[in-house]
Amino acid sequence: MTQHAAPTLPLDELAAVFGPRLSTAADELDRVARDQSRYQPEGRPAAAVFPESTDEVSQALAWAHRHGVTVSVRGAGTGLSGGAAGYPGGLVISLERLNRIVGIDAVNRLAVVQAGVINSDLDEAARGHGLFFPPDPASARISTVGGNIATNAGGLRCLNHGVTRDSVAALTVVLADGRVVHTGARTRKNVVGLDLTSLFVGSEGTLGVITEAKVRLKPVPEGAAQTFRAGFRTVEDAGRAVTAIVNGEYLPEVLELLDAHSVQVIEAFHPSGLPVDGQALLIGQFTGRHALQAAQSVAALCRSFGAADVLIGEGDSLLEARRLANPALSAHGLRVSCDVGVPVGELAAVFRGIDEIAQRTGRMISVVAHAGDGNLHPTVDAEDTPEGHAAAEKVIDEITRLALSLGGTITGEHGIGKVKQHELSWQLDEPTRAAQLAVKAALDPAGILTPGRSL
Amino acid sequence: MTQHAAPTLPLDELAAVFGPRLSTAADELDRVARDQSRYQPEGRPAAAVFPESTDEVSQALAWAHRHGVTVSVRGAGTGLSGGAAGYPGGLVISLERLNRIVGIDAVNRLAVVQAGVINSDLDEAARGHGLFFPPDPASARISTVGGNIATNAGGLRCLNHGVTRDSVAALTVVLADGRVVHTGARTRKNVVGLDLTSLFVGSEGTLGVITEAKVRLKPVPEGAAQTFRAGFRTVEDAGRAVTAIVNGEYLPEVLELLDAHSVQVIEAFHPSGLPVDGQALLIGQFTGRHALQAAQSVAALCRSFGAADVLIGEGDSLLEARRLANPALSAHGLRVSCDVGVPVGELAAVFRGIDEIAQRTGRMISVVAHAGDGNLHPTVDAEDTPEGHAAAEKVIDEITRLALSLGGTITGEHGIGKVKQHELSWQLDEPTRAAQLAVKAALDPAGILTPGRSL
Ligand SMILES: Cc1cc2nc3c(=O)[nH]c(=O)nc-3n(C[C@H](O)[C@H](O)[C@H](O)COP(=O)(O)OP(=O)(O)OC[C@H]3O[C@@H](n4cnc5c(N)ncnc54)[C@H](O)[C@@H]3O)c2cc1C
Ligand SMILES: Cc1cc2nc3c(=O)[nH]c(=O)nc-3n(C[C@H](O)[C@H](O)[C@H](O)COP(=O)(O)OP(=O)(O)OC[C@H]3O[C@@H](n4cnc5c(N)ncnc54)[C@H](O)[C@@H]3O)c2cc1C
Repeated sequence: MTQHAAPTLPLDELAAVFGPRLSTAADELDRVARDQSRYQPEGRPAAAVFPESTDEVSQALAWAHRHGVTVSVRGAGTGLSGGAAGYPGGLVISLERLNRIVGIDAVNRLAVVQAGVINSDLDEAARGHGLFFPPDPASARISTVGGNIATNAGGLRCLNHGVTRDSVAALTVVLADGRVVHTGARTRKNVVGLDLTSLFVGSEGTLGVITEAKVRLKPVPEGAAQTFRAGFRTVEDAGRAVTAIVNGEYLPEVLELLDAHSVQVIEAFHPSGLPVDGQALLIGQFTGRHALQAAQSVAALCRSFGAADVLIGEGDSLLEARRLANPALSAHGLRVSCDVGVPVGELAAVFRGIDEIAQRTGRMISVVAHAGDGNLHPTVDAEDTPEGHAAAEKVIDEITRLALSLGGTITGEHGIGKVKQHELSWQLDEPTRAAQLAVKAALDPAGILTPGRSL
Repeated sequence: MTQHAAPTLPLDELAAVFGPRLSTAADELDRVARDQSRYQPEGRPAAAVFPESTDEVSQALAWAHRHGVTVSVRGAGTGLSGGAAGYPGGLVISLERLNRIVGIDAVNRLAVVQAGVINSDLDEAARGHGLFFPPDPASARISTVGGNIATNAGGLRCLNHGVTRDSVAALTVVLADGRVVHTGARTRKNVVGLDLTSLFVGSEGTLGVITEAKVRLKPVPEGAAQTFRAGFRTVEDAGRAVTAIVNGEYLPEVLELLDAHSVQVIEAFHPSGLPVDGQALLIGQFTGRHALQAAQSVAALCRSFGAADVLIGEGDSLLEARRLANPALSAHGLRVSCDVGVPVGELAAVFRGIDEIAQRTGRMISVVAHAGDGNLHPTVDAEDTPEGHAAAEKVIDEITRLALSLGGTITGEHGIGKVKQHELSWQLDEPTRAAQLAVKAALDPAGILTPGRSL
């Protein structure tokens, strides 16, 4: 495994394949060597290539394999775990130009797309056929389908439509040595050999480069969406209400929670009359022909858990506040966040625990949650100094261990990458990690592909 | 890799662990060395063990690993691909005594079960909590949850509830050398490391022995089920109707097709007034509060595709005919069947093609299909002679290649095991098979676990 490329790196071989789509320009390398996480690459990659076909990806990897060059793989670099960050002296394979929607098969509800297609571009194309692409991370307008697959991205609609894996039927993947494999099938059911499709989903660039995917689409529901919003006196009450809702008669498509701190930050960022006096806001959405009836029923359920300020509105407008959470929190200043999950029955307990941690450490913790999935993004305010940062990280560690103690997970959707690797052993025992690394070594024996991350 | 155990096999070491739950009796070995496929093991295993804990499975595998003994893994032996068949001189690990329902967590809709629990026993226990276990192969009363997971079993309700994989949250698995790994999580979302859970699902005993599973349950829908039945003049018409139904407003929970031959065999086996004059019968079911409205809407859709004899009935009774298909076809005499899948938009084409094959070869082919999934079980009548058998196999091969030519799969739910291994290269290219075998070798370097099958 070569972390630092030899000075004699024969870039001319790559240039012969990629021409102007090979870059060694410092500013371009700096751009493609970073993602949206706080992880800073330790040095500049030697080169980046921008393939436009599976075959070009194959040639790039065969080259890297031949010369022992470490490779990072990049979709749009919106990742939050450092998984796409460049390696010093390494090669960046950026999929941004592999961005063609190859076709949409409306009858079988399948789309064939290249990895670099932007999620919302695919969704828009699907809507032209009365269909939509279910995975909808908040980054849908800026992240790639390949990146969504490689991270098994979540989003707002997982409660009803599942995670990205549930929308992937088949993949074309280039392995570390340049060989091309084809996984999955166009059929709904397929049990031929091992489920390599699921293995590559969520593998964060460690097992191969996804170049093309057959993904499943769903029909756009009829009628207008109905959105409800309910304010709760305590976050625990809201947690209990969520547990009841997901065990109730109507399962919302979206069920999000904003705690008081988040609500205040959002309201300050973009005033819209959010109720800022309660401790938690629940926002849910139903679609389909019984949406209004469902929204009314769940609104009543919320009231029975003590909710006040219960509203129902047609369309997406009540969801706007949730969509503003990311920009509002970013604008608010440095905050360190995480992505823990708990079984949905433990929501009240995890909120109680987070509150206790906030009080004990004296740190302000705000929570935005895909509540119906039990997936929380607590963020901790931090001073922009190494010490402030380290202190916030410690609080995040406490929250993470709290989630684990409740039968939860250290990452629900953002992945491990570089930034969460120190937490892996908290969740996975030694033999399980060894099994993961054995699978990695089987598919990338030379260890050139996104080494030292995620596993 | 030792296919034949050395005569000096130290069974005493195993006896020390298993006592009377180690068997070397010929009749017991013959029982556990076969499954329900037509595959006949080539010789008798040396021994079988009946573990009652993960630790005992670990000890059995460590022993086999130490001594290079080939191991077959058995749930209930209802498999149709020879995957659980014994190896001459090998060890059988039978999970039939590892059959405890460890617990049901109704709030989080999770059950913890040992691998040998019978599917319908789990389902019944779940129903005590108002929940059910979605995977429902026709073998639900006789197959194990571990076997369902190891084959990623399908069934009647996949259209709405997915395949077994969609119901598996976490697994305890013993690897070939006896190490115990824990995959997955109790949360709905989890992206920690590689998705080993999905990798073990459908691995047909080749990667490890599943000893315990956390599986997802769903709430029992309210109200009575509504079942509809529609007779079509041609199978192609029925195929077109199915394509329209699954792209329509209401997605049935069950959508099954019986062709004329199957209907006749079922009616002869157990007369119930099935309409035997048409060429295809479609049977579908809806549950939940809008079941009747949905059934009526789909019944009307069927009529618009030329269906006559359209009936709607409350409850399960109209489904009875479908459930009789397996026993009726078995009682009817020797038939060779397969398990192909096509994209649901190709149903009319695949039926047309099968008809053409029947006419050309002069063989009677009957079809029972999980039509909504595009998953077909065509069976070919055969004389009970080696030649008759071989001729039927050739017809099956033609049907299989037809399905592949329509973008389909060689197995939708029964798996590859031993009987379909010669078809693997029809669907998977060389690098993809090599990748599968590399993963297998990574987790079972000595190749003692179900070698030479499925991959
Ligand atoms: C504002 C904002 C909101 C977000 N909201 C969500 C959210 O709601 N839910 C959620 O889950 N995430 C969210 N994210 C995180 C991020 O957008 C997702 O992880 C997304 O899936 C990454 O896609 P990308 O194309 O940017 O991938 P990148 O960041 O480029 O890469 C991510 C990882 O995938 C690998 N990778 C990328 N493409 C490929 C490929 N073709 N083949 C193999 N490996 C590949 C990389 O090596 C890396 O390890 C958000 C991020 C931002 C900035
Ligand atoms: C009448 C009848 C109807 C059927 N209907 C359907 C149907 O509708 N849908 C469908 O998909 N299948 C169906 N089948 C096939 C069969 O029932 C399924 O494949 C079932 O999942 C097998 O379960 P089992 O416990 O009998 O496993 P076995 O037959 O014992 O084993 C099957 C495979 O799984 C492996 N295995 C079993 N347990 C474990 C374990 N704990 N760990 C690791 N590997 C293990 C075995 O090695 C073998 O490769 C039917 C079979 C019959 C006889």
